[in-house]
Order: sequence, then C-alpha cells, then structure tokens
Amino acid sequence: MKHGARNQLAGKVVEIKRGTVMCQVKVEVAAGASMFSVMTLDSLADLGIKEGDRVNVLVKAVNVLLARE
Amino acid sequence: MKHGARNQLAGKVVEIKRGTVMCQVKVEVAAGASMFSVMTLDSLADLGIKEGDRVNVLVKAVNVLLARE
Amino acid sequence: MKHGARNQLAGKVVEIKRGTVMCQVKVEVAAGASMFSVMTLDSLADLGIKEGDRVNVLVKAVNVLLARE
Amino acid sequence: MKHGARNQLAGKVVEIKRGTVMCQVKVEVAAGASMFSVMTLDSLADLGIKEGDRVNVLVKAVNVLLARE
Amino acid sequence: MKHGARNQLAGKVVEIKRGTVMCQVKVEVAAGASMFSVMTLDSLADLGIKEGDRVNVLVKAVNVLLARE
Amino acid sequence: MKHGARNQLAGKVVEIKRGTVMCQVKVEVAAGASMFSVMTLDSLADLGIKEGDRVNVLVKAVNVLLARE
Repeated sequence: MKHGARNQLAGKVVEIKRGTVMCQVKVEVAAGASMFSVMTLDSLADLGIKEGDRVNVLVKAVNVLLARE
Repeated sequence: MKHGARNQLAGKVVEIKRGTVMCQVKVEVAAGASMFSVMTLDSLADLGIKEGDRVNVLVKAVNVLLARE
Repeated sequence: MKHGARNQLAGKVVEIKRGTVMCQVKVEVAAGASMFSVMTLDSLADLGIKEGDRVNVLVKAVNVLLARE
Repeated sequence: MKHGARNQLAGKVVEIKRGTVMCQVKVEVAAGASMFSVMTLDSLADLGIKEGDRVNVLVKAVNVLLARE
Repeated sequence: MKHGARNQLAGKVVEIKRGTVMCQVKVEVAAGASMFSVMTLDSLADLGIKEGDRVNVLVKAVNVLLARE
Repeated sequence: MKHGARNQLAGKVVEIKRGTVMCQVKVEVAAGASMFSVMTLDSLADLGIKEGDRVNVLVKAVNVLLARE
C-alpha cells in the first residue's frame, strides 16, 4: 500500500500496554531506538498485532515538531 | 528541557524547502533514515535552524499510526 | 495493508490544488459528500495519485472532533 | 457556528465506550458507514451527548491521510 | 454550538498571512498573548473571518504538549 | 530550548487525572483560563510534573481550529 505520510520507519512491536479504551504500543525501529503509538483497543484488535510482529510506523509531517537546545 | 512527547529522535537538518507560509524540513535521524517536519515559516525563523544544525524530532504518540502488510 | 486508524472511507480523487510546499486533495466519499486532505507535494508525488483515482481516506480517532448545535 | 475544519459529516451517535480518562464515540454518518472520535470523559460530559443524538463530525484536513492499494 | 474540544479561548483576529494553499491566522487571546492557526485558504473563505473579528480558538487536548525547563 | 511550535503559553499544573494508559493534565495559563493536555502516563512520568509545577503549553498551529458564532 502507498500512503501520503511523509515519515515511515520499519520496526518490531516490543511491548503493548492495554488500558480500558486506549493502548500504547512500543516499536523498536533501530538498535536502541523506539517509537510509541497510542491507539484505541479496537484499532489494535483490527490491526491484529502482537509482540514480535513487524510493523511500519507512519507519521504525517505536520505532526512532527522540531526542537533544539 | 523536558517534554511530554513520547517520541524523540536526534538528527541533523539536511534540507529546507520554503513555501509562502509553510516549509518542509528534512532531518537525517540515522544512516539512510530521514524524518520530515512541516511548520510555518515563522516557526522556522523562531527556531533559527539551517542545514547542518542538530535538532530533536518530537512526535506525540497519539499522532503515530501503525500499519502492517 | 492493515492500519491502526479507526476511520476509513473509500473515495475518488476529484480535485488537487497545488501550492509551493503543500497541496490540498478533494476526495468524493459518497454522493454529495467530500473529504479533504492536506499533505506535502512530496507526499503527493510518492502517493502518485491524480484526479479520478480511487483512494482510502484514513483518520485517527483522536483527530476527530464532535460538535452539536 | 462556523468553523475552520475542512471536513464535516453529519451523523448519529450509536455507541459510547467509556474508559477511565478517555472515551470512544461511534457515529453513524451514512448507511453502513461509521466514524469514531476519541475524547476525554470531561469533554464528553461538556458535549452532553448520548446514544441517538445527532452530531457533526469535524476533521481538519491536515489530519486526513490518503492511501491507495 | 457545543464541541468536544477540551481547550477553548476567545480572541480577536489580528493578522492573516495568505499562502497559495494554506494560510496562518494570528489571534490575540489576551493582552500580549497570541495564538496561531494554520488552515487551508478554502477553510478561511468558509469561515469568513477578517482582521478584527472575534473568534474562538479550539484545540483538542491530545494535541497539547507540555514542556518544562 | 527552542522549538517549532507556533503556540506557547506559560502556566501552572493544577490537576492531574490518571487513567490506566493515558492521563489528563489541567494547566492554569491565566486568571480563570485553563488548558488541558492528554498524554500517556509514561510521558507524565518522564516529564516528572506534579500539581503546582510551572510548565509551558505547546501547540502546533496546524492543530488549532478557529470557530465563530
């Protein structure tokens, strides 16, 4: 599938924390670097991922904030 | 500075495309991996970055979408 | 592809307005109902869509605001 | 009220899932098509909606992602 | 109108910068404090605002980032 | 720290509601005016804030919606 998100990183699901409506998924995108996604439990079920699965991490560029010291 | 964004990657500005109100900044976050941020030209000026500068890339976890094949 | 966006609507691209960095794509999702997506011109090129193409419109639920009279 | 969101769909609340801080509201926007909004329980209380109520679904165009097969 | 955005501030439009697809609107929300909104030119036209008009500034809480020194 | 968010308001944390994965933080930004941020509990822990602490409220301009009566 092609998509209109400027940012894409491949990674592996390493942790899923489930809440009552939302959940937080930790994805290892490189040695020592992780990214986190928050979604609904329903979306997690649709996506059908579990720890160890390969996923793509997508972020629209408008949602990326830059900062400097 | 500490911040409440779950995702942070360090990188180097490698390209800035300027539009009339917005701009797009490309940041190399690892060998061969880049991220893009879209912001206003005014924010770019406040941030005061140019190509070659070190920046941190921040993304709130709610704005991260996961996908799989 | 499966993804973690709670909202998905199928539609057809009916108009693309190009700016200098960003563009606006209008998608007809049902008779008389349209949705609009703003993305970078670079993402538009990667996506490779033109008027008449079928696309899926994805929105994370956290970005959906409800209002009432 | 007028607003600066490019996307607006009218619909009917068909389900509300309550968590401890957040909730997920399902809105039927057309025969067989639904959209989901995630908001805080406090916002749900302010909005004062319940199942069966008519609402408008608003999304800013920058938060709409397009994808294609 | 009631809405499900946790943040609302009243203010006055003090500046509009128009690009080719997007625009940036500056709103004075209190003495010396301003907020900025980026939207499409089409949304600006629909909203029908000009400098001096009173507007409400809405932000969903998931899009608010906290930082500290 | 400098950042590329067009909106910044200084304030004081006045309330934290904790859920199972997410939390909601209320920040008083001026006499009688508050803003709310939703983040993960993990981000709250990293940020290390408690009631009474001074924080900065950051919002990217693309996430600000304007409305009028």
